[in-house]
Formats: sequence, structure tokens, C-alpha cells
Amino acid sequence: MNKKMNILMFSGDYDKALAGLILANTAKEMDMDVTIFFAFWGLLLVRNPNNMSEEDKTSYEKIFTSMIPKGVEDLPLSKMNFAGIGKKMLKEMMEDKDAPTPTDFLQGAINKGIKMQACKLSCEIMGFKKEDLLDNVEIVTAKDYLKDALKSNIQLFI
Amino acid sequence: MNKKMNILMFSGDYDKALAGLILANTAKEMDMDVTIFFAFWGLLLVRNPNNMSEEDKTSYEKIFTSMIPKGVEDLPLSKMNFAGIGKKMLKEMMEDKDAPTPTDFLQGAINKGIKMQACKLSCEIMGFKKEDLLDNVEIVTAKDYLKDALKSNIQLFI
Amino acid sequence: MNKKMNILMFSGDYDKALAGLILANTAKEMDMDVTIFFAFWGLLLVRNPNNMSEEDKTSYEKIFTSMIPKGVEDLPLSKMNFAGIGKKMLKEMMEDKDAPTPTDFLQGAINKGIKMQACKLSCEIMGFKKEDLLDNVEIVTAKDYLKDALKSNIQLFI
Repeated sequence: MNKKMNILMFSGDYDKALAGLILANTAKEMDMDVTIFFAFWGLLLVRNPNNMSEEDKTSYEKIFTSMIPKGVEDLPLSKMNFAGIGKKMLKEMMEDKDAPTPTDFLQGAINKGIKMQACKLSCEIMGFKKEDLLDNVEIVTAKDYLKDALKSNIQLFI
Repeated sequence: MNKKMNILMFSGDYDKALAGLILANTAKEMDMDVTIFFAFWGLLLVRNPNNMSEEDKTSYEKIFTSMIPKGVEDLPLSKMNFAGIGKKMLKEMMEDKDAPTPTDFLQGAINKGIKMQACKLSCEIMGFKKEDLLDNVEIVTAKDYLKDALKSNIQLFI
Repeated sequence: MNKKMNILMFSGDYDKALAGLILANTAKEMDMDVTIFFAFWGLLLVRNPNNMSEEDKTSYEKIFTSMIPKGVEDLPLSKMNFAGIGKKMLKEMMEDKDAPTPTDFLQGAINKGIKMQACKLSCEIMGFKKEDLLDNVEIVTAKDYLKDALKSNIQLFI
């Protein structure tokens, strides 16, 4: 039976997203089964770029939705962001080394069949509906997360 | 034998506290044994609201104690806190959906018999004594944490 | 066979570094095998103090290198740092209790033979070479990390 890893992606930071996605892709390349459970700010990694509509949202949800990052490349750094300058620098340093971007790793995760789940309660609180998220993302409960985590050899909260 | 989860609650963020407490409550409802080990800022989740005295504290401890949040509802967001506006908005959005608060989940954890432990060294550094913490919280060492974590199927650092 | 713990040290915060190093040292004292994998900001914990040269660095790397902390004692707090005042206060409170510093724990980790690894991709992006890191730190890939984590009883992302 394949080894298995479960990542609870809570953070909405560019650098932590990158870390989580690199680990997920690498594990999958090693023939491990991988699940990423996106909760809270982690949901910002899997927003559907083709659906940023504010339909059916309460006024708080509308303000909130207009303020949050629109996707993985739009996330701030967890440190030294300096209003975006630090992140710009990091991105230039990554380009210099031809390092793949979070978008590449996210696409890689989808292509490789990494299981992607969104936390139901987080979606409800933040006002995200199925169509606000990438197609491959399934909405599941905290209980579903725990069942998957229990079957995993590695569990990380990022 | 029951499955077991151990959460090391390091963060003193409102959103991360909520995540940790939701996972702990859900796991317990699934008949898992659950331990939460509160360390550093995590201790702010379990301050005793009936004992905010500054007796027997050094001057640094007094300043420190006066500056830190008084309990779980008083914690800031890890992101988009905007001097409290972001958090107020999140709380309104949670109320809109009748989502339980961290206080509800903390009380749930106590009622359900989730094991709650405080890190001895963190207590010493921050000047917290047994009576400064909620009744159900036991003070234990890092070694005790590791023993419990080794017996757990899931370990998370939040 | 010894029990085993693997810590992925992602954060470059003074308090989180302290937490990770205390856990690592305590686990090793309990005869567990311990590996710390330093990635991204975690690399700041293991910078070689005798080699802060900017030779062979691109201009982005030079600016970046000049801005980041020079070692574990130089790291900011994850919370209440207040431009260093919060950290100064925490350090005074630690001194009051004769609590060991991160430097002590880092030296302890080296003396005890805790395995210390740096993430290859993080080193490349940030422009760190072998000689920029402490002698005991080996540069390995994400795949090597996952192999080690799979053999571990406890895995934490800090």
C-alpha cells in the first residue's frame, strides 16, 4: 500500500503556500497518496479565477471578498513582505534560478491527481461557494479531514 | 484502542485557536483521545478570567501581563487584523452563520474531557502560575508532551 | 529501535525557533532520533556567523542577505515584537529565570548529534551556499526530507 501524506493548508502566505505545494508535489512523485485540506486563509490558494462574482453574498462577505488576495500568486509573504517589496525580490530571485512558481506547483498538483479539499465551515464563514473554488476542489467537513489524516503517515499543519 | 490526536497549540491567534479547538472537539466527537498542549502564546487561550492579578509578579511580568490578550476572544487574527477591524468582520460573518465561537469550543473541550496541558517552561518564562490558568489545565514538561505525542496517531503544531 | 522525530523548521521567528530547538533537544535526551530540516526562513537559524561574505552573490541576493537576521539571536518575535521591544522584554524575562537561550539549544543540538539538514531549493532561492551555513548542516532535497519524515513517529511543521 502506498504511503500517504495529509497537509492541512491553513496559511494564506505566499511562502508557506509554496512550501506546502512543493512537499505535496514531491510526495506524489515518490508515489505517495497526497491530500491537501484547505482551511481558512488556505482557501485563498484555490479561488476560481473565473468566478470572482459577488452575487449571493452578504455585505460583509462582499467587503471581505474584495479585500482578500485573488489567488496563489497574489498572496503576501509571511515575513519581510514590506508592502510587497520583499515578495517582489523573492520572486525575482526565484526567476533567476528558474524555480517553478506556486501556480506551477498548483497546476502540477491538479495534473498529478493530488486530492484537494476545502473545509466546509471555513467556506461558510468566508462566504465561499463551490463555484468560487477551483474545479478540482471538493468541500468536506473537519470530520472528513480527520479520517484522511488518521490514514496518513505524515500530517502537517502549514 | 481509541485513536489519538495531540495538538501543540503554540499560536495566540484567534483564527488558529479556532482551527485547533474545532479539530480537537471534532476528534473527540469521533471517540478519539485528544490532548492539547498549550505553549508560549497558546497559553493566552487558557488564562483564568477570574485571576488577572499581578501579585507575585516581577516588573517585566507585570508589563507583559498587562499587554497580552485576556483570553481566547481577545486574541488578534493572524492575518488582515487591521487593528481589530478584520477580526470584527470575521466575527460578524461567523455570527451571521450561527458558527460557534472559540469560547464555545473551549467550553466544549472542557466538557468533553479533552486533556488540556500547559508547557511548564513557557509558564515560567511568561510568569504564569497554576492559578492564572483555567482549572482544567495541568502544567507539564516538554518531555510529557513528547510522551503523549509519541502515543498519538496525529500530531499537529498550530 | 529508537523512536524518531522530524521537525520541518520553516519559520524564522525567535519564539518558534526556541520551541523547535527545545523539543529537539528534549527528544534527543529521551533517546529519540531527531532530524531538523531547515527551510526558507528556518535557514536563518543556521547561518554561519564566520561567513557573512557577499561574494558570488547576485545583486538581489546581496540586498536580501544584508537585510535578513544574522543568526538565531537576531530573529524577531512572531508576535508582539514591537520593533524589538517585546523581544527584549522576553529575553529579560528568560534571563530572570536562567532559561537557556536559542543559541544554547542550537549548540546543544549540535553537541548531541541531532541531524541538521538545509532545504536545497530554499538555499538556491535565497542564495545560500554550503559555507554560508553552520558546519554541521547538510544540504538535502525535499525528497530526502520526506524519506526521513516517513520513518519518523512525530513530524512537526514549525
